[in-house]
Amino acid sequence: MKSDNVHDRSEKLGLPPGSLIFVGEQKTDSVVLTVSNYDPDRFEEKQAASIEDCLAYRDLPSITWIHVCGLHRPDIIESLGKSYGIHHLFLEDILNTSQRPKMEDLGEGLFIVMKSFTLSGDDETTAAEQISFILGKNYVISLQEGNADIFEPVRTRLRSAHGRIRSLGPDYLLYALMDTVVDHYFSVLEVLGERIEVLEDELLTDHARETLPRVHRLRRELLFLKKMAWPLREVINAMLRIETGLIQQTTQFYIRDLYDHIIQVVDTLENYRELASGLLEIYLSSVSNRMNEVMKVLTIIATIFIPITFIAGVYGMNFEFMPELKWRWGYAMVWGVMIAMIITMLGYFRKKKWL
Amino acid sequence: MKSDNVHDRSEKLGLPPGSLIFVGEQKTDSVVLTVSNYDPDRFEEKQAASIEDCLAYRDLPSITWIHVCGLHRPDIIESLGKSYGIHHLFLEDILNTSQRPKMEDLGEGLFIVMKSFTLSGDDETTAAEQISFILGKNYVISLQEGNADIFEPVRTRLRSAHGRIRSLGPDYLLYALMDTVVDHYFSVLEVLGERIEVLEDELLTDHARETLPRVHRLRRELLFLKKMAWPLREVINAMLRIETGLIQQTTQFYIRDLYDHIIQVVDTLENYRELASGLLEIYLSSVSNRMNEVMKVLTIIATIFIPITFIAGVYGMNFEFMPELKWRWGYAMVWGVMIAMIITMLGYFRKKKWL
Amino acid sequence: MKSDNVHDRSEKLGLPPGSLIFVGEQKTDSVVLTVSNYDPDRFEEKQAASIEDCLAYRDLPSITWIHVCGLHRPDIIESLGKSYGIHHLFLEDILNTSQRPKMEDLGEGLFIVMKSFTLSGDDETTAAEQISFILGKNYVISLQEGNADIFEPVRTRLRSAHGRIRSLGPDYLLYALMDTVVDHYFSVLEVLGERIEVLEDELLTDHARETLPRVHRLRRELLFLKKMAWPLREVINAMLRIETGLIQQTTQFYIRDLYDHIIQVVDTLENYRELASGLLEIYLSSVSNRMNEVMKVLTIIATIFIPITFIAGVYGMNFEFMPELKWRWGYAMVWGVMIAMIITMLGYFRKKKWL
Amino acid sequence: MKSDNVHDRSEKLGLPPGSLIFVGEQKTDSVVLTVSNYDPDRFEEKQAASIEDCLAYRDLPSITWIHVCGLHRPDIIESLGKSYGIHHLFLEDILNTSQRPKMEDLGEGLFIVMKSFTLSGDDETTAAEQISFILGKNYVISLQEGNADIFEPVRTRLRSAHGRIRSLGPDYLLYALMDTVVDHYFSVLEVLGERIEVLEDELLTDHARETLPRVHRLRRELLFLKKMAWPLREVINAMLRIETGLIQQTTQFYIRDLYDHIIQVVDTLENYRELASGLLEIYLSSVSNRMNEVMKVLTIIATIFIPITFIAGVYGMNFEFMPELKWRWGYAMVWGVMIAMIITMLGYFRKKKWL
Amino acid sequence: MKSDNVHDRSEKLGLPPGSLIFVGEQKTDSVVLTVSNYDPDRFEEKQAASIEDCLAYRDLPSITWIHVCGLHRPDIIESLGKSYGIHHLFLEDILNTSQRPKMEDLGEGLFIVMKSFTLSGDDETTAAEQISFILGKNYVISLQEGNADIFEPVRTRLRSAHGRIRSLGPDYLLYALMDTVVDHYFSVLEVLGERIEVLEDELLTDHARETLPRVHRLRRELLFLKKMAWPLREVINAMLRIETGLIQQTTQFYIRDLYDHIIQVVDTLENYRELASGLLEIYLSSVSNRMNEVMKVLTIIATIFIPITFIAGVYGMNFEFMPELKWRWGYAMVWGVMIAMIITMLGYFRKKKWL
Repeated sequence: MKSDNVHDRSEKLGLPPGSLIFVGEQKTDSVVLTVSNYDPDRFEEKQAASIEDCLAYRDLPSITWIHVCGLHRPDIIESLGKSYGIHHLFLEDILNTSQRPKMEDLGEGLFIVMKSFTLSGDDETTAAEQISFILGKNYVISLQEGNADIFEPVRTRLRSAHGRIRSLGPDYLLYALMDTVVDHYFSVLEVLGERIEVLEDELLTDHARETLPRVHRLRRELLFLKKMAWPLREVINAMLRIETGLIQQTTQFYIRDLYDHIIQVVDTLENYRELASGLLEIYLSSVSNRMNEVMKVLTIIATIFIPITFIAGVYGMNFEFMPELKWRWGYAMVWGVMIAMIITMLGYFRKKKWL
Repeated sequence: MKSDNVHDRSEKLGLPPGSLIFVGEQKTDSVVLTVSNYDPDRFEEKQAASIEDCLAYRDLPSITWIHVCGLHRPDIIESLGKSYGIHHLFLEDILNTSQRPKMEDLGEGLFIVMKSFTLSGDDETTAAEQISFILGKNYVISLQEGNADIFEPVRTRLRSAHGRIRSLGPDYLLYALMDTVVDHYFSVLEVLGERIEVLEDELLTDHARETLPRVHRLRRELLFLKKMAWPLREVINAMLRIETGLIQQTTQFYIRDLYDHIIQVVDTLENYRELASGLLEIYLSSVSNRMNEVMKVLTIIATIFIPITFIAGVYGMNFEFMPELKWRWGYAMVWGVMIAMIITMLGYFRKKKWL
Repeated sequence: MKSDNVHDRSEKLGLPPGSLIFVGEQKTDSVVLTVSNYDPDRFEEKQAASIEDCLAYRDLPSITWIHVCGLHRPDIIESLGKSYGIHHLFLEDILNTSQRPKMEDLGEGLFIVMKSFTLSGDDETTAAEQISFILGKNYVISLQEGNADIFEPVRTRLRSAHGRIRSLGPDYLLYALMDTVVDHYFSVLEVLGERIEVLEDELLTDHARETLPRVHRLRRELLFLKKMAWPLREVINAMLRIETGLIQQTTQFYIRDLYDHIIQVVDTLENYRELASGLLEIYLSSVSNRMNEVMKVLTIIATIFIPITFIAGVYGMNFEFMPELKWRWGYAMVWGVMIAMIITMLGYFRKKKWL
Repeated sequence: MKSDNVHDRSEKLGLPPGSLIFVGEQKTDSVVLTVSNYDPDRFEEKQAASIEDCLAYRDLPSITWIHVCGLHRPDIIESLGKSYGIHHLFLEDILNTSQRPKMEDLGEGLFIVMKSFTLSGDDETTAAEQISFILGKNYVISLQEGNADIFEPVRTRLRSAHGRIRSLGPDYLLYALMDTVVDHYFSVLEVLGERIEVLEDELLTDHARETLPRVHRLRRELLFLKKMAWPLREVINAMLRIETGLIQQTTQFYIRDLYDHIIQVVDTLENYRELASGLLEIYLSSVSNRMNEVMKVLTIIATIFIPITFIAGVYGMNFEFMPELKWRWGYAMVWGVMIAMIITMLGYFRKKKWL
Repeated sequence: MKSDNVHDRSEKLGLPPGSLIFVGEQKTDSVVLTVSNYDPDRFEEKQAASIEDCLAYRDLPSITWIHVCGLHRPDIIESLGKSYGIHHLFLEDILNTSQRPKMEDLGEGLFIVMKSFTLSGDDETTAAEQISFILGKNYVISLQEGNADIFEPVRTRLRSAHGRIRSLGPDYLLYALMDTVVDHYFSVLEVLGERIEVLEDELLTDHARETLPRVHRLRRELLFLKKMAWPLREVINAMLRIETGLIQQTTQFYIRDLYDHIIQVVDTLENYRELASGLLEIYLSSVSNRMNEVMKVLTIIATIFIPITFIAGVYGMNFEFMPELKWRWGYAMVWGVMIAMIITMLGYFRKKKWL
């Protein structure tokens, strides 16, 4: 998970506002357009070659969902803007993948940008991509950077005739898509929660040197997630309060549920962030603890042997007149003295609770 | 106390909203339904086999309290929804035990979710379970995950004819149930407060290595409690401000008292959290302190013996021309020098306050 | 100062709300009731045996002040409730000494709970007790846990005919009593401020091991004071905004002054809390500093003597062919080498600024 | 800069509110009253012996500025109160030098208390004193604790006929005085900013033991300044919003500028506080760093010499059968072994980047 | 990037408000005035010698943009004030380069102050300068401290006939200029983001002593940027809410986009600040880690050699009666004992995971 795309923004320095340049890292080879058209009785789905192919649906009463995978061809986005009358500043936002989640009222439509987080690969790293939605009277346009197909379950529900989704409007479709994205947040949180627990166990029992960079990486990811989840909360809250006729009473109800979910995401993130800073404290404490133990071993060894080595040194001196050297039991006595010293020291350490 | 159930949520990935699946860990074997029906003059109580059994009471003027222990049978929850006209999104909330405390206005009813914390076993660990309430015109439905019977005192008061509770409406019953749950918070806080004091004493006097994980566990629990108590404050505040006719003037008065209690819980939690972070600081300080002492012992021993060992070493040299070795009092003089050095060192340490 | 009475609350688990049970620690032997009755021209004071004794004053136009010392007899509180028409939930608050400061509008009266802090004994420990006030049309009832007579100065002013206090209403009396309580906060802050300064000096110059628990105790006290002073601010602010006719224009003016005082208390507390966390940082820094110094001494001694001890060791070897041992000036040369090494080391340490 | 005068407040314990007692430390010998009276055409200035001397000006249409240096004579303050009709609670605030900055609407006047900070002496310590202002229809009364003449530049501008100040009302004079006080804040900030930079350099390059108390003193001063600057912001903001006719449109404009200045003071203070806590972190880091270096020296010396001293010890043993001792090149070989060990060790340290 | 110009402010101590003195460091040699005049059909650009030269454009219907590089000549600013009727307090703000970003409503104009950050030189240090804008009915005046030509791209767009910019009003020009400034913020953030990553890598792998001052410098820069970006957010927000007719509907739209950008800057800064404090924690942790390793090496060496050196010392004693010395295998046995001790020690260290 790359934590910041501020970098790429600087390519646009000096260009007039509204210039359509893709800012980000290309995540798919070709741009794929999928058009779905449905009403309670009918469902049709096809791949489109260009936005112009979709225009036929624009004026039908049935609901159209255009899903665009891949943002690196500004021409497609531009023709989308022309066909559906979207201001070039919003098209710019779609292409700028460092966009902050936000909602804009287009008058006869709604424009929403958010981040999607998905788990990829076996090591369960999280991948972020930007997803934009445009809600119109009878259509939803969704645009994502890559080709991770997170909306497949929604499409399956659309295909089956008896779900709620076919009989409700495009606002419910938008809700269903956003709900899918937010549901993936929980999977990511789950993985992060497990990583926190693993790190915690490692730190409390037996830690390796590489734990620290991993803690740091975790904190960076939580920071990034927070940066993306907080404004999303405001976005969904704004959807609840908006007075355009686009979102109907029934859907409002579902969006309130979605709002509950995002609040829970934000709450959990805050908890995780607190736990993650706790990890560093545990780390420092356990390093201190270890150092303390190392010091104790050193001190015990040194404190026992330095004095008796001195005794041995004394009787290694070569003075001519050293009466003890001549005593019959001198050597034994020295050993006695040294053993007494060792016992005294050990007693002292036991009293100090070092042993 | 398991701190987060985000895990289990991921099982629902891809399902349409409102799917009734129990999210959580099953805490009781069978689902038990207890129905109480009362008016000022009468009290009746029985075990019911299914929700349908309770339907007879629905249209009586007397007050009905249905208490459900165990949430792992979605069919029961679903029939409850059908009988009492509760939206499937709320049924989903009841079944999702990672729900955040919240209140929803159902139009002709109120829906409240909160957490109950109880002490279990001798080691006084806290167990959390989710409790949901539905308040209607003439009924209260309460649903809990397990079978810990915390509402028994309320039932006792209901049985006796002369308490206030029989003559007041279902709103007062709801208050009495919520008050019981919040009263248990104080017991949990009491246990946590004692654990903080025990840890504090251990850290300040004589700490073992296992103290650190215990401090960490304590902080996790406080974090979880906070996450559950904060939104409850908002819930109870919302109950005070709601303008539905369901909650009467007299009960408002009691709910204000309940609000005071939850504020006190939140305040105490904040204090505990501050004390708990203080614990870590004490821990680090006392580890530093100890290391300092260990170092001092090592330094004193080394500083005294290393120089005199050197003196001994000098006169252990085998040079042919070492005049001192031949002196009559050479050996005595060396001892004199060494003792003088020891005294000087001890004086220095006393000046430095190391002794 | 005991920081939390959450403990005792658990005794009430399972009792219906409004049960009159004294929660706390008994602080006086017998309950003493002092009744004062006054108007601008007259002042009368007596000890009453029971609340019923005071009833005669209730319907007089003159102002009555009933002061109750000792809360451990619920029957007295109950008869007070009956005589003056106070709801049992408020009586419960009076008896629950873990109550958070708050103000309640009784319709024809005001109910205020706050904490009083006084200094006791020579060691100037602070003692906290709960004080409740009930303000009526022509009376003030004050109830305190113990028998510390902090209101004596007010009584003195009442006795003298020419003060402002006799000519103003019961609202001014309430103000005078609360002002007295808040004035004592300043004495407590003064003592705490001095303790912070003493600790600071100890930590910066020469600290003993017992400093740390004292810092911790200080922080606990500040935490408790904060918990009690913050809501008091809201209470006094609410008194300023309340629209009941009980508090007159002139008294409002004085209450605003009281509000200024409590703001100052809160401000000072915040400062003290910041200084107290600074203390811990100083502590850790000075422990580190000391350890650094200890290490330096050890290193200097070891670094000087270990190499020259090695030299001495070399010439203590018993090889048959060691030419130096036979040299005439061998011994002197060895001393020369050793002294040169010492001088080099000392120079190195001076360069490193260790000496 | 003494950081808190809470101490002196306790002298007032038990006195009725509004008692005029000087709380603080006397900063000047005698109280000096300077009266200035001016209109666009005229300027008159004299020293007054008492407030009664100034009464003549009260009813003139021209503007009067009474400046009082020294607060330790309550009688003067009292006669001021009588002459200008100021409530005794405000007189009390003037005398209580631990007052928090505040503004009070006197109905036909404004009462403002703030702190002035000035640099005194060569060592540029900051001195704080309390300054109160009373703004009336045609007068400004300013009262300060000491006799630091910070208002001289304003007086100079008043004396000259062509400045803006003579033609505008007393509200502009009040603004000019307050602006002068706030301008001095910048000088104090400048000095503090330099002290932070000096401390930073000391800590990063070569620190002495006394740095820590200085960092702590700096933080205390910043804390005190913050405590005084924050409420001043609210005071000036309140002056902008007040609807009394005392402050005219033109002056409002200048007060907005003053508001910008105080915001800048508060911002800079916040930055300084952050930098100051950064200082402590640098300190701890550099102590750790140093200790690390000391340890390395010790470890290198010990690790090199302990093993070779052992070798020397081995051949200092007096066994009769030690073949090596008899070898022709035994001594040289031992030296060879020892030098090889030293080289190995040095290589190891180089690899570890300790050298 | 100099972080605070509070210093220079003190030069103004004692001067009346509105005195025009340049506060700051001169950043360019001569003051350069560039005047551009355009309408949809025409574009004219010239260097002007003085403000008076520009007066001719003032009353034309076409749009005039006067750009002033260099603020050190107060006379030019003063004549600007006279020609365009700008209050001397705002002129003072223009000259005071320590000004906080702000917007002021001039009645028939808008006054905006903000900071521009540009990268300069190869080492990519950031340079800050103050930029002020005055927006009038048909003109924009921009003033900057130095001569870094960041507005060249805007000028290029003005020169070309087909851009949007020529056909929109002076409000759009103001937006375009401000947008250019904010776009440069992203370049600065990019460089800072890279520096954080570089520091992080250095700290986690192999750090030098100079890392700490660099971390500190980084934090100072972030603090300064934050101080300048936060109020800018409010400025742009105020521009959105202002009800003067100067800013048209279409431009509002673009300003909302600008607001999004500044929010993103502020968000990113907050993240960077958190990462930067994380850096210090990593630093401390890795210093601790290293010290731990150093200690281990010392302890292993000392613990292995001190005991066996003692053994060697024992048999170096010169007692006459030491039976071992005479044994045939005495010497070999001693070696055996010593090797056994070494092996035991190594086993102990392996068990402790020190090896």
